[in-house]
Amino acid sequence: MVKSMLEANSLPNPVTVPLSNRSYEIRFYQNITDIANDVKAHAAEDVVVISNSVVWDLYGKSLETSLESAGLTIATWLMGDGEKFKSVETASLAWDFLVERKFSRKTCIVAFGGGVVGDLAGFVAATYLRGVPFIQIPTTVVAMVDSSVGGKTGVDHPLGKNLIGAFYQPKLVAMSMSLLATLDKHNLQGGFAEVIKYGIIYDADFFSWLEKNLERAMALEPDAIAHVVRRSCEIKADVVGQDEQESGLRAILNYGHTFGHAIEALGEYKETQFHGQAVAIGMVCAADMAVVLGLMPDADRDRIEALVARAGLPRHLEADMNVEAVYDRMFSDKKVSAGKVHFVLPTRIGHVELKGDVTKESVLEVLRGRRLK
Amino acid sequence: MVKSMLEANSLPNPVTVPLSNRSYEIRFYQNITDIANDVKAHAAEDVVVISNSVVWDLYGKSLETSLESAGLTIATWLMGDGEKFKSVETASLAWDFLVERKFSRKTCIVAFGGGVVGDLAGFVAATYLRGVPFIQIPTTVVAMVDSSVGGKTGVDHPLGKNLIGAFYQPKLVAMSMSLLATLDKHNLQGGFAEVIKYGIIYDADFFSWLEKNLERAMALEPDAIAHVVRRSCEIKADVVGQDEQESGLRAILNYGHTFGHAIEALGEYKETQFHGQAVAIGMVCAADMAVVLGLMPDADRDRIEALVARAGLPRHLEADMNVEAVYDRMFSDKKVSAGKVHFVLPTRIGHVELKGDVTKESVLEVLRGRRLK
Repeated sequence: MVKSMLEANSLPNPVTVPLSNRSYEIRFYQNITDIANDVKAHAAEDVVVISNSVVWDLYGKSLETSLESAGLTIATWLMGDGEKFKSVETASLAWDFLVERKFSRKTCIVAFGGGVVGDLAGFVAATYLRGVPFIQIPTTVVAMVDSSVGGKTGVDHPLGKNLIGAFYQPKLVAMSMSLLATLDKHNLQGGFAEVIKYGIIYDADFFSWLEKNLERAMALEPDAIAHVVRRSCEIKADVVGQDEQESGLRAILNYGHTFGHAIEALGEYKETQFHGQAVAIGMVCAADMAVVLGLMPDADRDRIEALVARAGLPRHLEADMNVEAVYDRMFSDKKVSAGKVHFVLPTRIGHVELKGDVTKESVLEVLRGRRLK
Repeated sequence: MVKSMLEANSLPNPVTVPLSNRSYEIRFYQNITDIANDVKAHAAEDVVVISNSVVWDLYGKSLETSLESAGLTIATWLMGDGEKFKSVETASLAWDFLVERKFSRKTCIVAFGGGVVGDLAGFVAATYLRGVPFIQIPTTVVAMVDSSVGGKTGVDHPLGKNLIGAFYQPKLVAMSMSLLATLDKHNLQGGFAEVIKYGIIYDADFFSWLEKNLERAMALEPDAIAHVVRRSCEIKADVVGQDEQESGLRAILNYGHTFGHAIEALGEYKETQFHGQAVAIGMVCAADMAVVLGLMPDADRDRIEALVARAGLPRHLEADMNVEAVYDRMFSDKKVSAGKVHFVLPTRIGHVELKGDVTKESVLEVLRGRRLK
């Protein structure tokens, strides 16, 4: 299956995100220095790269040199590293930079980093002069398979994640697996939470493939990691293409996120509460919920939990986690409509459904069951 | 002409802004209390009215009572009155209000006020939870004929107007001329700058009609003001429908604004430097420029200047205005592309063209010529 798609030394085919006049491609490159010509195709004038110093120290010079060689004029704006910088305040600093330098509406903003950089840079691109061209170069697994595909941009509010933002599509998402070589284990594992999610919600075959190949993919063996990233993007593009603004189907991508966001928020963005790790716990909680409600057999939940564990991801809440607080937090989430939380619950591996009629008692039962003893 | 469109005691027909799946109607109502049912048609859950205390003291209770009678739940958020409140800081306060009250993505935001309220509320609606339904109820002439039609939302930056924002279309623009009764003369005159603009850029007949009926319209005689507002909206809808994101034709709406924005900015938003008044000076400057460049006969410039004067609008720069500073300011405007200012210049009443090759010397000549001696 992988062989047929990815010949030795060849790169995966592009994935198209089908959004009529806002359609764009996710393209794959051997090295970041190969991206420059495609950036040039979308950048009429200047390029402003938004990144952080961790990424820039590792790869900034290569990117900058290659873009300049392609004849582009580059400015760089570095933000802080970490979720706490995904804020209105950071966006304001970026707006100041762009305004003070008088960048025009033809300026192309390139997000070069993980999900935090991509979400913030995308929001800045969506709102500077009411929108300028935007390109994503994701540098982490989670950014490659999730945040850089689908046009969700935004910043956090002290009371919740991603509460301020815009739907804004990039002109191009440019991926090079070579960037993953320097990714720390924790970040890599967090990204695989989203990868596993795609199998659970949409593709039982992909889930089975992961059961056979997870360790190879996480070791970044070229054919395996390329298949993981491309298939994940393909699933996300398929879902987003059917429901760009999350009025229906797109909600399935929130599998694990209703629990996950609440758990993550109560961790107050602690080092140990990264997004992917919180989503992993959330996916297992949602699987538990499906079992509690009699929607899914125990065996499927066990397969989900086993794969999450093999990816080095957490499956439990801390022993002192206040489950009532987690429950309350779910209702401050933006997906809350008319005071109702819609849970994305699997009925089998490869298929999920939305349930709006889950009782508080069953939520608390699931959360208590997941607390470390 | 007016008679045929507007029978005695009847209201103008709606104007459709044609933007495929984002199309919406501009509808006309005798009184604001008549709007409630149409708001209800677009508001699935709560309604948050964003307004300022000046408007709210005059009309808030009527609107609130009628919306509640229609079965809607209303919350009100009042911002300061004036351009200086059209800022990222004010938007942040509005986001805080919405997040703290946990309004869902089905909440309908209603902008109830002039251009400042509409632009800010529209930006908040565009960005809260990545976009919630939005309705405009403009209360000034300029908001009715210009800012509430076309989907430009945003806030100012200390270095320039409207530099942060989004294209975001309302579900409905609801207009009641009854709101204009309390408008001060200065605001009314400012609105007529934009009205006159539509005649110059697009419709020689409308310009001639204004030459015959300006005083009647400014006295708010029902048939005359209704024709002015509806025809202006129709022209703007026609232009925006052809070029929503300002990649071409829409730029003609900036007639008078390249000079005007720079003049307004250098006035530092003084009481005497309202938007419409600055645009009026800008329109006369642009007409001068067209004459200087030999694009338009003197006689047309004189008709433009005469109508601007009859509307009580300024046509001159203050004697101490630094014309070099005005010139420099034009190049920090967001329409600047590759360091080039594109001037919208009339070739006759009813038709304008874009010129990118205007010399600094001719700009300064026009500005010097417009300084009070």
